[in-house]
Amino acid sequence: MARTAAEIRRSNVFVVIRALHARKAGVSRRELADVTGLSSATVSTICTELMEFGLISEARRLRAAAGRPTAQLILDPNHGVLIGVDVAETYVHVDSFDASLTAMTSTELAIDVHDRAPELVVCRVREAILVETARHADSRLLSIGVSIPGQVDQKGGASVFAHNWDWHNVPLLQMLGDAFEAPLYLENPLKAIALAELWSSADRSNQTFVSLNLGTGVGAGIAIEGALLRGRTNSAGEWGHTTLVADGRACRCGSRGCVEAYIGAPGILQTLRELHPESRILHGDDQTQTIEALAAAVRSGTPEALDVLEVVSHQLGLAMASLVNLLNPDAVIVGGWVSRRLGPDLLERALPHIRTHALPTPVNAVSFEVASDRANSVSLGVAILALEGYVNSVSDGYANEEVQPLRGWLH
Amino acid sequence: MARTAAEIRRSNVFVVIRALHARKAGVSRRELADVTGLSSATVSTICTELMEFGLISEARRLRAAAGRPTAQLILDPNHGVLIGVDVAETYVHVDSFDASLTAMTSTELAIDVHDRAPELVVCRVREAILVETARHADSRLLSIGVSIPGQVDQKGGASVFAHNWDWHNVPLLQMLGDAFEAPLYLENPLKAIALAELWSSADRSNQTFVSLNLGTGVGAGIAIEGALLRGRTNSAGEWGHTTLVADGRACRCGSRGCVEAYIGAPGILQTLRELHPESRILHGDDQTQTIEALAAAVRSGTPEALDVLEVVSHQLGLAMASLVNLLNPDAVIVGGWVSRRLGPDLLERALPHIRTHALPTPVNAVSFEVASDRANSVSLGVAILALEGYVNSVSDGYANEEVQPLRGWLH
Repeated sequence: MARTAAEIRRSNVFVVIRALHARKAGVSRRELADVTGLSSATVSTICTELMEFGLISEARRLRAAAGRPTAQLILDPNHGVLIGVDVAETYVHVDSFDASLTAMTSTELAIDVHDRAPELVVCRVREAILVETARHADSRLLSIGVSIPGQVDQKGGASVFAHNWDWHNVPLLQMLGDAFEAPLYLENPLKAIALAELWSSADRSNQTFVSLNLGTGVGAGIAIEGALLRGRTNSAGEWGHTTLVADGRACRCGSRGCVEAYIGAPGILQTLRELHPESRILHGDDQTQTIEALAAAVRSGTPEALDVLEVVSHQLGLAMASLVNLLNPDAVIVGGWVSRRLGPDLLERALPHIRTHALPTPVNAVSFEVASDRANSVSLGVAILALEGYVNSVSDGYANEEVQPLRGWLH
Repeated sequence: MARTAAEIRRSNVFVVIRALHARKAGVSRRELADVTGLSSATVSTICTELMEFGLISEARRLRAAAGRPTAQLILDPNHGVLIGVDVAETYVHVDSFDASLTAMTSTELAIDVHDRAPELVVCRVREAILVETARHADSRLLSIGVSIPGQVDQKGGASVFAHNWDWHNVPLLQMLGDAFEAPLYLENPLKAIALAELWSSADRSNQTFVSLNLGTGVGAGIAIEGALLRGRTNSAGEWGHTTLVADGRACRCGSRGCVEAYIGAPGILQTLRELHPESRILHGDDQTQTIEALAAAVRSGTPEALDVLEVVSHQLGLAMASLVNLLNPDAVIVGGWVSRRLGPDLLERALPHIRTHALPTPVNAVSFEVASDRANSVSLGVAILALEGYVNSVSDGYANEEVQPLRGWLH
């Protein structure tokens, strides 16, 4: 909790950048002070510094009825390019963003599910990034963010453990790094999604919330009063591996009865097989096809699909109620590829279960939402991480100045 | 996340006070700067202010081999008295602390379990506080902290909901307040215990940890990187009402399968009754006597007691593993009256279950501890809350000075 002047200054810089990002049309220094709670002098000094290295610029000046025109500040899209890389089991998706975090172009390459060796996956990821950066060869490449499933050692740039490929301590950034001049930053999709959510609106940026990711795996990104919760070893958020049914179904983590074993896509398939083994909704072990068929069958009111939806909604509701009781958050946001297919139907049916199982005080205070279906919140999240890394690197010069005069950044 | 200069200064004041509290023998300004990470100038200015209003003083001066003697600073025990009040279902326990948070005297009065009406409980609480403050009539009463079970509206000073008495929105501080000149502050025992833990050592003060309270009710106080997690409506930490067994035992919260329904004292009694209905360990519905008899029977190796302990340890282990996976904490500390009787035996047997069910990365990073058996961590916790309130009130004059020169507190 001890905050040095340098840390506070750094944190306030990001408060200002987030506020600018949430107001793409431009915002005056005075409005920035109002919305951030920082003093006008602090905002003004931070803006001057950020303009000096080019991340923000004056979009235009608004002429008031009387007095001087007011400069409208924006994150300058022309300052350079940020790359966000979403590495999944079956694909690598790369998005380019301008420096105001607007998505520009994207590249997606398939990854063969049998190519599990780190060298093969890394080769494919490198290829996708190179294709994508070549599109913006005229611009300055600021930095690259990479998301990889599983547990990530952010500082070491390594994949500590990835279930899907059975990777252990793969030095990912080192393996990738030689090909690029820009610095690389690593995270997992859960934290990337939560970062994207934190930056998505002015309201969100100070909240305590949980972004749920419903997919093959299940997990959560947790933000506490506007800051990503990393935990001691950057593995916070493993909501999929909290117990839902003591001694229940075997989970791929080695434990039993985990949330993921029920509401992860393979868990939903298992429930469908248990309830309706002959169902035409089942497409063998193909998760994507089966979940899509389930979503279509729900929409057409097929009884067996509604059966499954009811069971899964109940399980989801219980697991969400636990989160609400434990963390008393402002919001729980449901996302991920299963949610993109089934989210509104799932959440609608989960709500009564949440209300039955959660305590009145926290459940009346929380809002439940289905994540907006924006392009790729994982790649956006790691692009934000890359932007943070970039800002930290250019403002490193100020970081060791604690005893020096503060250039007014603090008051 | 936006931090104004006033908020930062306030936060740094508490960083210094916590550091002084963790070093009762006295500490120099230079050492304070080292341990807090704050600059010497910030520490020096904060210390000067705190000395001006008398909370800290120079204990003595250490003479170095060469040079000037170094002042050793301490929280001044003579500055005044803090009162911590622990209101439970069957008693009210009041501790007096000096301003360095050393316990002095205490008063405990029984509360008749049938006297559930707020007026009756408040009357008993007021009486206990008056008895205790009368002992220190010669000293200045700084402030009073009150802990009450259930959900608490800290700002409104009200008990929002207390299961045990079926209270709803009882304006507790208003009912108590007339009798005392000092300000009163309200919290629940879970957060009080976590506050006491946060202040217990220099190591703890920056950690992410969970203090479990095992008693009739079950809950957790959560600290995130050195700050108490309150949540949106100050009800974070209801770990007892997270699901352990979907659709399991009825819980007094109205839900089913909650952690509390298994490892709360009534849940342990129920397990004992289910496994060994004729057991001599059972003392009807008397929780205290039965848990004490169970602890004694465990120590003497009675098979039926070991049976029960094994089941409860397994349930506790699962529920703790969920916390470890979700929050990736530095420490989980087991406390509460059930833990005081059974804690080491329970934790020892729970550990293998935690290791089986938690993910390797977070479980290898966390330390599990049984809370030290110190006098009354609840009353200490609310006395700390009272101290925080006192410091905030005396430094309120500085809070509105953001645009003014900062008196050097920040650099």
